[in-house]
Amino acid sequence: MRVDEQFKHIRNHSLFLCRDLITEDFSLQASEEVSPPKWHLAHTTWFFEQFILIPFAEAYHVKHPQFNFLFNSYYNSLGERTARNQRGLMTRPAVSEVFDYREYVDQAMLELIAQGNEEVLSLVTLGLNHEQQHQELLVTDLKFSLWFNPLTISVMDIGEYIIPNSSPWVEKEEGIYEVGYKGNGFCFDNELNAHKVYLNAFRISGNLVSNEEYLEFINAGGYENPIYWHDEGWAWVQQQKVKKPLYWEYSEGTWKYYTLNGKKSIDLKAPVAHVSFYEASAFANWKGKRLPTEFEWEVAQQDFHWGSRWEWTNSAYLPYPGFKIAPGALGEYNGKFMVNQMVLRGASVATPEHHSRPTYRNFFHPHFRWQFMGIRLAESI
Amino acid sequence: MRVDEQFKHIRNHSLFLCRDLITEDFSLQASEEVSPPKWHLAHTTWFFEQFILIPFAEAYHVKHPQFNFLFNSYYNSLGERTARNQRGLMTRPAVSEVFDYREYVDQAMLELIAQGNEEVLSLVTLGLNHEQQHQELLVTDLKFSLWFNPLTISVMDIGEYIIPNSSPWVEKEEGIYEVGYKGNGFCFDNELNAHKVYLNAFRISGNLVSNEEYLEFINAGGYENPIYWHDEGWAWVQQQKVKKPLYWEYSEGTWKYYTLNGKKSIDLKAPVAHVSFYEASAFANWKGKRLPTEFEWEVAQQDFHWGSRWEWTNSAYLPYPGFKIAPGALGEYNGKFMVNQMVLRGASVATPEHHSRPTYRNFFHPHFRWQFMGIRLAESI
Amino acid sequence: MRVDEQFKHIRNHSLFLCRDLITEDFSLQASEEVSPPKWHLAHTTWFFEQFILIPFAEAYHVKHPQFNFLFNSYYNSLGERTARNQRGLMTRPAVSEVFDYREYVDQAMLELIAQGNEEVLSLVTLGLNHEQQHQELLVTDLKFSLWFNPLTISVMDIGEYIIPNSSPWVEKEEGIYEVGYKGNGFCFDNELNAHKVYLNAFRISGNLVSNEEYLEFINAGGYENPIYWHDEGWAWVQQQKVKKPLYWEYSEGTWKYYTLNGKKSIDLKAPVAHVSFYEASAFANWKGKRLPTEFEWEVAQQDFHWGSRWEWTNSAYLPYPGFKIAPGALGEYNGKFMVNQMVLRGASVATPEHHSRPTYRNFFHPHFRWQFMGIRLAESI
Amino acid sequence: MRVDEQFKHIRNHSLFLCRDLITEDFSLQASEEVSPPKWHLAHTTWFFEQFILIPFAEAYHVKHPQFNFLFNSYYNSLGERTARNQRGLMTRPAVSEVFDYREYVDQAMLELIAQGNEEVLSLVTLGLNHEQQHQELLVTDLKFSLWFNPLTISVMDIGEYIIPNSSPWVEKEEGIYEVGYKGNGFCFDNELNAHKVYLNAFRISGNLVSNEEYLEFINAGGYENPIYWHDEGWAWVQQQKVKKPLYWEYSEGTWKYYTLNGKKSIDLKAPVAHVSFYEASAFANWKGKRLPTEFEWEVAQQDFHWGSRWEWTNSAYLPYPGFKIAPGALGEYNGKFMVNQMVLRGASVATPEHHSRPTYRNFFHPHFRWQFMGIRLAESI
Repeated sequence: MRVDEQFKHIRNHSLFLCRDLITEDFSLQASEEVSPPKWHLAHTTWFFEQFILIPFAEAYHVKHPQFNFLFNSYYNSLGERTARNQRGLMTRPAVSEVFDYREYVDQAMLELIAQGNEEVLSLVTLGLNHEQQHQELLVTDLKFSLWFNPLTISVMDIGEYIIPNSSPWVEKEEGIYEVGYKGNGFCFDNELNAHKVYLNAFRISGNLVSNEEYLEFINAGGYENPIYWHDEGWAWVQQQKVKKPLYWEYSEGTWKYYTLNGKKSIDLKAPVAHVSFYEASAFANWKGKRLPTEFEWEVAQQDFHWGSRWEWTNSAYLPYPGFKIAPGALGEYNGKFMVNQMVLRGASVATPEHHSRPTYRNFFHPHFRWQFMGIRLAESI
Repeated sequence: MRVDEQFKHIRNHSLFLCRDLITEDFSLQASEEVSPPKWHLAHTTWFFEQFILIPFAEAYHVKHPQFNFLFNSYYNSLGERTARNQRGLMTRPAVSEVFDYREYVDQAMLELIAQGNEEVLSLVTLGLNHEQQHQELLVTDLKFSLWFNPLTISVMDIGEYIIPNSSPWVEKEEGIYEVGYKGNGFCFDNELNAHKVYLNAFRISGNLVSNEEYLEFINAGGYENPIYWHDEGWAWVQQQKVKKPLYWEYSEGTWKYYTLNGKKSIDLKAPVAHVSFYEASAFANWKGKRLPTEFEWEVAQQDFHWGSRWEWTNSAYLPYPGFKIAPGALGEYNGKFMVNQMVLRGASVATPEHHSRPTYRNFFHPHFRWQFMGIRLAESI
Repeated sequence: MRVDEQFKHIRNHSLFLCRDLITEDFSLQASEEVSPPKWHLAHTTWFFEQFILIPFAEAYHVKHPQFNFLFNSYYNSLGERTARNQRGLMTRPAVSEVFDYREYVDQAMLELIAQGNEEVLSLVTLGLNHEQQHQELLVTDLKFSLWFNPLTISVMDIGEYIIPNSSPWVEKEEGIYEVGYKGNGFCFDNELNAHKVYLNAFRISGNLVSNEEYLEFINAGGYENPIYWHDEGWAWVQQQKVKKPLYWEYSEGTWKYYTLNGKKSIDLKAPVAHVSFYEASAFANWKGKRLPTEFEWEVAQQDFHWGSRWEWTNSAYLPYPGFKIAPGALGEYNGKFMVNQMVLRGASVATPEHHSRPTYRNFFHPHFRWQFMGIRLAESI
Repeated sequence: MRVDEQFKHIRNHSLFLCRDLITEDFSLQASEEVSPPKWHLAHTTWFFEQFILIPFAEAYHVKHPQFNFLFNSYYNSLGERTARNQRGLMTRPAVSEVFDYREYVDQAMLELIAQGNEEVLSLVTLGLNHEQQHQELLVTDLKFSLWFNPLTISVMDIGEYIIPNSSPWVEKEEGIYEVGYKGNGFCFDNELNAHKVYLNAFRISGNLVSNEEYLEFINAGGYENPIYWHDEGWAWVQQQKVKKPLYWEYSEGTWKYYTLNGKKSIDLKAPVAHVSFYEASAFANWKGKRLPTEFEWEVAQQDFHWGSRWEWTNSAYLPYPGFKIAPGALGEYNGKFMVNQMVLRGASVATPEHHSRPTYRNFFHPHFRWQFMGIRLAESI
């Protein structure tokens, strides 16, 4: 697909995700960790304006100078910004103004893309990947925020609990493997440099852990026994009184879960979702297995199906050998988050098509659950 | 005015206050203490439904049973309700549905009022006074929440900083006075019973403290010297780094304040607003005066102008002799708040016409500032 | 008793209270609200040094200049001081050094007292009353802090749960009464000025509420029903999961309470202790009665027994007419606490002999329970 | 050294560290993260009793059954224990009783050791390594807690700021290296299994970063510029207002630091201590270098001096291939902490002699600073 077509396609998809929202929903923000739909729509637009139009489009006129403050996300080097937990308070600009802002920037972007400058096209690709990341967040944030509404609201059906085909366990021998991105396409800086790692022999499951298996863990008292848990995981379970995955509820004798398409009965065969790293790890301990490392996952991934859940690995999010932070504000994209987070590999039902790849490194703090996070088991041989 | 006309008049006024809001603004809630406009519009409607239509209108059909949960405010005896800090998360029901709900309930109410049942008419009067209280909150809550928006938004002009006529000090002799409500009209239960109090001789100012006088306090270092402050007031000043009234800002050499009609330069002659009890009390100490008690205020009020600011008194909010809590949920209206709050007397620019009276007892925690709270001085003779 | 004898007697009593402590106990502090014994012993000494020896004893030499910082309690106008929650961290000066400090100051004080200066003698009386207040706190703070030790520790027997004689209800007629201190002896500034109040007719119980009556409240579900509680009291009950008075525990089928002399079975006839204002007030509501005001208590107190519990009143702690804050640091003694606290009248088993009187005004925040706080009922006639 | 001699030697060293403490100091605990000396002395003794005497010494009589509750540290599977932040509240048992407890257990241990049971001797070695870990904590915890005392207290001189010899940078080639413990002596389970890793070529400094170099970072505005910091590090700097290492203070024109032997002027040539991982990492970024990984450190360590500071690495604390958690309570020793912590390698001036080794893995959360933590730089070639 040509860059301008890609641009139109991905930009339109953000609006498509909002097709069943009412104006009121666009400002909804139920916690500091999630953002309102309007903010996602505006921030991704701001990204194109700030990093491409302002430096490269000579005649470009910034229509709303305050939007830099309003829709900057976390770029410390670009100055003050709206406090993260106050994004939902920005009832103005109106939703319609944000839609106008998107059109205005898109128009300017398409003109600039037509000029074919290589540096611009490379930044456009980055901006589109950035927008896709926010498309996934828009969906998961919305799920989280709508969940607080006692009137169960349906706004989209993304097939959250599809049931995958079954695959056998995969074995890999001890030795040197190469990991990291080495193609010619786009990748994020955290996937570089491609490098060698030495792995001991291991076995990894072809399947994600199902709701049925996870229910066994619950019923076996998994949430009541500290021996399965990290010390911090156990503290989290006790303080938050966690007894089940996020969005699960037990009522009238059956387990149900909340989806963006309403409340459903648990599909036993579907892969469990919305578990923290602590839960994933405790489940693995209870099973006498462990989580894979991100490199075990990467070298084995072609032998199994993936894509419906982000899969917790037992790897901390750290730089690859020779990793360099880019100069300027874009250098804040990935590197500064490389502490206290765990790597997730794969993709989920909320990830836009063609966005992920085998070397893709997603990352979250170990207690987060609002993404579609699942579990795959491994063991040393 | 007939009750049905009063009903229409007051109910319409709530909508009139929202005339310049956009749909997005109706869910805006910037802190736990304030509520979104939509919630005020729905909750006042729920009050008529819950306390009048359900018990008295035989054929009345509750259209939205979940609204009892969504729009109950604090009646512990009526069961579960939306957590106070999550009122802004209720993007559904839509604004238009709440308007429909108002119309539906108003229609049923007007039919019921027409039947002329005395108990109903008495409850209608309570419901209308309740609605007026929420009209004031709607205005002050909105001011607070919009204030967080970096784009200074104008939504109404209520003459926040009008300049009053000047009046002399008033003196009262030592002796027995009668306080509390003893007329035939409506009053809240906390104004009863009318009773005698013994007051020592005192003097009370005919004027509210002006912005100019308050600026002198600021410039004299009033916020830096603990001797003027209550111990808790001083802790509040230090922890919150308070240096000025709420909504004031100093920029480019001048003092400005934020109003619902935009940002303005300080009117030196206008009465200071948005100060806490701690600030009011520290100011009085600095002046070598004190705040009046609520009874001093009540017996002297006819000799001075009041109505633009709620006036902090040095009286704690406590029951009058013989005070009785009404049976049922309406008994939760006032009595259960009689601890840790201070009484304010008078009325403010945001108070609906004809709502207050000389015996009216408003009350807030000593650190609150988002109402139009001002200062009147007194002294013992 | 002569002032020097009084001085020796009261100063020695502070040491007497510590007779069964081990060195380790003197630094014990289990929360911000309580202080370690060593701190009480040093602070009361500092008070004599700071307010009497330094200004009046010409040849006096301050031996430890840092003690001003270490043992100042809350006098904001005297500069920096140890954070309240870090008093237990001052393992140095050693206990023996604090004992030496007491002796050193006592010696200088006795020499100064012998000179007979009237202003000094008046301040000595204040200092001794101050020391007695800290003697009560030393006992109650110690009880609170030792309670955390799983090895039930006994350090003194003060007869915490003595059973009083029974008295009938007392009635008073409507009319003008005089309250406040008007004798020639010592009183605190908050008991002044004596003044007239107008009271409606009322009835007040001759007895404190017993453990037996309080147990009925517990067994009747008093802690589970919001209608008896202030709104803030109910929030406190829910957040703190309060289900019984402080120091009570139910184990092996019986109710026990913790005393400074070990764990005991509940004496049903003894007056309930260690309840908050919220609990006292909820109990009264459940009984269909109310708490007395501090003035009702004062005008009726000569007709009933009191002295084993501080008695919660329904009066907020506020200044009397004409109350003046003294100049200088001693002006911080009482006035700055006159917000958000409730008045308690009487005395307790932990109050030193001859310390309290009928006009004495004790005060605490409504949620505090670690003093020996009890309940007396009243009602309007 | 024979095991019984080792036992006596190491047990005595714990007491030796306390030689200049007064009784009051033994209960000192200034934050949840640190423990009082008495607790360290008792807990290490409890460890021998719980894991060796009770299971292996047939005639052993547990003298104080409550000590299991009082001095258990974090073994969730052994039941309830004293809340970590309340260890300082245990004024009883007295210090002398804890000394008696040590003697009692030591006597029983020496008798058991004399029997020569292999499993026992192996657990004794674990218990002694455990005691040495607590010796280091006793020193660093004491430093932290005493630091709050405004009277600068000296209790020991451990040569905190000795100046090391200078060494050149060290280079290592790309290739396979073996890491982890493979000798016959004692090691912790987290050092196993020895395994191969593939490292890219790198260079590592022979010297620790000095106070002088760190001062340059401070003076160059290192604490004010977000580009050097992890996002969480920057949030920590802002919230805690961090501007210098722990224990540093700037007064009267010079930098000083607090040591257990009193306050000293900064030694410019001494290695910086008491910095967090965030500070270590920001310093490295500012220098255009990075921190080494734990494996780079391990393969290069023989070419440089180490031992005065624990050295932050850029490796998260994670299990080695084939790591197995031991069955029973001892399995809680290491594995459950393997999340959200960073590895430190080396040893410090507070580490007991012969305790550390090249494969030793220490670990702390990235914001902790109270250990003697320092910085060594590395870079990729």
